[in-house]
Amino acid sequence: MTSQAHAPIGVFDSGLGGLTVLKELTEAFPEEDFVYLGDTARIPYGTKSADTIKAYTFKNIHFLKNLGVKAIVVACNSASSVLDDIKKSEDFTLPVFDVISPSAELAAKVSDKQIIGVIATRATVAQRSYVTKIKQHSLKAQVYQQCAPLLVSLVEEGWDEDPLTNLVCFRYLSPLIEAHMDTLVLGCTHYPVLRKSIERAVGPQVKIIESSLAVRADMEWAFDEGALLAKPASSPQPKASSVKILLTDHTPHSQSMVHRILNIKRDLMVDKVDI
Amino acid sequence: MTSQAHAPIGVFDSGLGGLTVLKELTEAFPEEDFVYLGDTARIPYGTKSADTIKAYTFKNIHFLKNLGVKAIVVACNSASSVLDDIKKSEDFTLPVFDVISPSAELAAKVSDKQIIGVIATRATVAQRSYVTKIKQHSLKAQVYQQCAPLLVSLVEEGWDEDPLTNLVCFRYLSPLIEAHMDTLVLGCTHYPVLRKSIERAVGPQVKIIESSLAVRADMEWAFDEGALLAKPASSPQPKASSVKILLTDHTPHSQSMVHRILNIKRDLMVDKVDI
Repeated sequence: MTSQAHAPIGVFDSGLGGLTVLKELTEAFPEEDFVYLGDTARIPYGTKSADTIKAYTFKNIHFLKNLGVKAIVVACNSASSVLDDIKKSEDFTLPVFDVISPSAELAAKVSDKQIIGVIATRATVAQRSYVTKIKQHSLKAQVYQQCAPLLVSLVEEGWDEDPLTNLVCFRYLSPLIEAHMDTLVLGCTHYPVLRKSIERAVGPQVKIIESSLAVRADMEWAFDEGALLAKPASSPQPKASSVKILLTDHTPHSQSMVHRILNIKRDLMVDKVDI
Repeated sequence: MTSQAHAPIGVFDSGLGGLTVLKELTEAFPEEDFVYLGDTARIPYGTKSADTIKAYTFKNIHFLKNLGVKAIVVACNSASSVLDDIKKSEDFTLPVFDVISPSAELAAKVSDKQIIGVIATRATVAQRSYVTKIKQHSLKAQVYQQCAPLLVSLVEEGWDEDPLTNLVCFRYLSPLIEAHMDTLVLGCTHYPVLRKSIERAVGPQVKIIESSLAVRADMEWAFDEGALLAKPASSPQPKASSVKILLTDHTPHSQSMVHRILNIKRDLMVDKVDI
């Protein structure tokens, strides 16, 4: 039990968008160690088929499990959208958190009019996971999905604060605004980087749900309930908590993206791995 | 020798952009059979490292070679940019055509002022293959490179004729216009789909070089020289020429992209393969 408490938490994403989740978790759980796996050799997942995303997700979970993590956070909406299917045939024997379930629950809880918009990748929209999971919490909810594939590229290009990004956001979000949503789920972990442009398009009256905050609440609950064992604050052999970043492909551009998105003050190791 | 003449020509790309090359080749060589491999499970290559692109390119060439093709066309600029490195350690024992060499030669030939612009993916720009190869044909040429990663996403989104695409093209091309280029190489096989927006940005005085036309000329030369054996027009067992499309991932979106880009009247088979 002690060794499990001391084990790191594994987080994975198709690429670097999941670092927005990792950042939130490192702030929420400063004592914990983290291993982040970014599958940058196969990025993006969101334009690919459910079968291909399942195969990649399966490999990533087993890779992290073999590293001895105590829990896994699937910090990728496209991968989260196929997770229920994988769990039907595979028992991972450790807690696996996804980003869709807690975001869907939170959206159903905070929406006054029960008109909820979701922007996501083409794969996540096709799987309809947000629609299914929001309706599990609120049968009367109306859910409007919009795929917004260009937003990932805009984040990767670094055009976060740009008139062009405002235009693209406005185009994608217009049908949801016309449907009078009062709550918008950012259904891709890249999107929080563009939050200012998104807020500009939807206006201040729309509540925005980010995956990172939802999964953080989910994990806090798991720690409180004892489903997940916290690393003791003072251990017999105390050492500083660490964040290890593993990428399946590594370029100077990905290195600068890691620092741009993460921007944390912990020890940070970035390594390349083959999966 | 006869069986080699009857073998299909293999064409590969990271995804579906190479279909712009395939389309040109099917028109140029109506008697020939073609097998097209689109590595849609790992698309895009252009954002990835040279080592990862080499590994994928190596696999694709061997896959097509095992299918018994008589020649291979690397219809992807990012893959073409690492091909010389691969050829140093590997003899493929069959003709391998790339899209960079003939485009570079053509650009050096047609540019009056010898001021040449190149737009390409981040990977192709980093490899500097166009700069090296244009200078092999014209020492005095000035070559200005610009990476334009968002253009691939705009093609995949289907925003070919769109004010937003015009704006993005104008932004990427402005530094090349300011450098007074008189010739522009479209250094990614996706870009010809956006040709109208690109022409609008650069104006009619700039000559535009497309990979497909350059590689077509290269292959015509190879047929004429006997380096590549043509399929006889009338054979003992005549059959209609065929185009087979193999994709490593297949979605409804990729199916519609194949028909949108290719739009040919030959027998067309689309299958999924694992590599």
